[in-house]
Amino acid sequence: MSDKIRIGLAGLGTVGATVAARLLQGAVPHAELVAVSARDANKQRGVDLSAADFVADPQELVSHHNVDVVVELIGGENGVALSLVEAALKKGKPVVTANKAMLAAHAAPLSELSVGGNVPLAFEAAVAGGIPVIKTVREGLAGNDIHRLCGILNGTCNYILSRMEVAGLSFDDALKEAQEKGFAEADPTLDVSGMDAGQKLAILSALAYGVAPDMDNISVTGIEAIMAADIAFAAEFDSVIRLVGLAERSGYGIYHSVEPVLVKRKHPLAQVVNELNAVSISAMPLGEIMLQGPGAGGGATASAVLADVSDIASGFGRPLFDSTVAAMKESASKNAPASEFYIRLALADQPGSMAKATQILAENGVSIEEVVQRSSEAGDSHLPVVFITHQTEKAALTSALSALEQQSEICNSVLALPVFVDEV
Amino acid sequence: MSDKIRIGLAGLGTVGATVAARLLQGAVPHAELVAVSARDANKQRGVDLSAADFVADPQELVSHHNVDVVVELIGGENGVALSLVEAALKKGKPVVTANKAMLAAHAAPLSELSVGGNVPLAFEAAVAGGIPVIKTVREGLAGNDIHRLCGILNGTCNYILSRMEVAGLSFDDALKEAQEKGFAEADPTLDVSGMDAGQKLAILSALAYGVAPDMDNISVTGIEAIMAADIAFAAEFDSVIRLVGLAERSGYGIYHSVEPVLVKRKHPLAQVVNELNAVSISAMPLGEIMLQGPGAGGGATASAVLADVSDIASGFGRPLFDSTVAAMKESASKNAPASEFYIRLALADQPGSMAKATQILAENGVSIEEVVQRSSEAGDSHLPVVFITHQTEKAALTSALSALEQQSEICNSVLALPVFVDEV
Repeated sequence: MSDKIRIGLAGLGTVGATVAARLLQGAVPHAELVAVSARDANKQRGVDLSAADFVADPQELVSHHNVDVVVELIGGENGVALSLVEAALKKGKPVVTANKAMLAAHAAPLSELSVGGNVPLAFEAAVAGGIPVIKTVREGLAGNDIHRLCGILNGTCNYILSRMEVAGLSFDDALKEAQEKGFAEADPTLDVSGMDAGQKLAILSALAYGVAPDMDNISVTGIEAIMAADIAFAAEFDSVIRLVGLAERSGYGIYHSVEPVLVKRKHPLAQVVNELNAVSISAMPLGEIMLQGPGAGGGATASAVLADVSDIASGFGRPLFDSTVAAMKESASKNAPASEFYIRLALADQPGSMAKATQILAENGVSIEEVVQRSSEAGDSHLPVVFITHQTEKAALTSALSALEQQSEICNSVLALPVFVDEV
Repeated sequence: MSDKIRIGLAGLGTVGATVAARLLQGAVPHAELVAVSARDANKQRGVDLSAADFVADPQELVSHHNVDVVVELIGGENGVALSLVEAALKKGKPVVTANKAMLAAHAAPLSELSVGGNVPLAFEAAVAGGIPVIKTVREGLAGNDIHRLCGILNGTCNYILSRMEVAGLSFDDALKEAQEKGFAEADPTLDVSGMDAGQKLAILSALAYGVAPDMDNISVTGIEAIMAADIAFAAEFDSVIRLVGLAERSGYGIYHSVEPVLVKRKHPLAQVVNELNAVSISAMPLGEIMLQGPGAGGGATASAVLADVSDIASGFGRPLFDSTVAAMKESASKNAPASEFYIRLALADQPGSMAKATQILAENGVSIEEVVQRSSEAGDSHLPVVFITHQTEKAALTSALSALEQQSEICNSVLALPVFVDEV
């Protein structure tokens, strides 16, 4: 008999193969890999798995008499991954997963099994890849009151925005490059829509504040509407554009958003480039800390999975959250905080256009701090114009935007982004 | 009977008072403060401590029948703090401490008591204040091989260097300002000499690599010799100066240094300003992560202490290191890696000085990449000159510097700093 915790691993993609190789090398002293499951038993993965049992059906890992802990790296919101995790928890076997989509969608029933049954369900790899943000929020900041959590939670979007900025690419060309380099999926919708970052934010918020995960609580805007011109305008304001997830305490509860925002170049989040992720946390009595690192990729995700395996093997596994989702009491707020905004629109190149646009803004209580207007390209009937507003309530902005869009002087390409003003 | 872990707290300075207040507010659900000790029972500390027993002698916390865990915030390498911690560990009572000087100096006997006796000894607050770097290195990167760890570990030095840079202050004026703002002690020697950063590096290296802590292993250079002119020269190379602690694996073992280095402005460590700390860790399979935050101050240090208390109260306390110091096998290397260097000297304002200096560098195998020479101020007999060298072995640099210092054409103010070239 071994005194090591015995691991059953489902899913042998890039992450799974790296986890398997490290476990077989003894990288986690008190854990050993005893069984694996994948679609294809014979695929070459660059690692000799002959020391582990191969089982065709991942569910067999749960009933396998040698497996103490199940590592789920299959992925997918439902289906095989979910039934495997549920079966393992029901049998009292701790689970390690990287599956943010599953956790965000099924947090309530999974919390009943894990928290209710006191079975560890570890998920460091589900948020911000190799950055130990789950451990930091939950353990490193225990004893603090967190009041603001924001960050770059999607490496695909950050890669695209970085390449638009540095190489002057269009959104489409930057996306294509990201796909070629393996930083974006063939179907990039989940990433560029902001939904992936939203899922991660929902999980972080449950830990940090005790808000029941619910995507309907999160105002999500993707980066599809960002044009090369926006990146260029941002540069004129000494800023860059980043997709930022934010969960912040207000008088109404916790406000959640994922959206592209203007960030000053000297702000720490502006320094986070390409596929990197970063999370900044403000808390009392701590102050503010920021963690930065690789948010995806085989090595980074494997690192987080191995850390979870190590905690469980050391007897330090924790359930999904500190309470079941049903017992979470903190409420979510949909009241966006007031902000400065970047408003980009295209004005007809004719007398009175600018007067009309600024009048509409004024009528809706939106006051202007800065304006940049470019001369039109030869043949363009519209001129690109950008306003930076003073601090504005979201409701005022929304009514101003809707009034602007009804004007024939204004081309149908109005975009508004919050300007990230920060104490940093 | 309470089912909470009962805390005895020694030391009620800024950190201790904050920890006490948070515990009394119930910030750590499974812990309660039952006893405190400080020199003066009646001093006003802005917190009502009447719920806790006051004991005049901190040693009484160990024998106090209600105290389960001792929090040591007295400070000092020896004396009361050390005997309190040793007595608590001997009695099997877990300890939380912020005392880096004590840990660096007495790691071996403390590890015998803690690791040998399997009694938790937690010290997140001893390194980088509120940044959970101990937890990250030990738990968040479990399963990784760390190969490089570097960072800004002393907020006092970083504040001084930042103020010299931003406000153009001399070292003396920046130090004075730091003292006035509470970022430097009346006697700043431990900080500005680099020794404080060295103690933290020794502790980190024991965790990250298993090198027995020994200050003799660490090449330590302080910031006292940095002049306003050096900051100005660095700016010409688009760089800043930072005091960087480095522990890096090489073929000879782990090389340790604390020294001022030239860092490119766009490097993440250059963005770390004022009293902030930061740690960057490179590991396999993770890649590189960086953590940044407040490295000192009451709130940040209290946050780390509370996290340790929470871990212990949750049954997740860990001993000082993973093995006793006596059992640590990794060796330290004194072979500095080759580097580019910044060499500043003052040349006599007379024909042949520059020829002589460059000849000495060439004779010692130091080849020059860039030179900047300034015109002298009226009345100065010497001209400031800076060389940036190509990659140079430390031995070649040392012999070149010693030859330069023997030349009468060169004023006695030669300074050499490594240039931090990084993959970031």
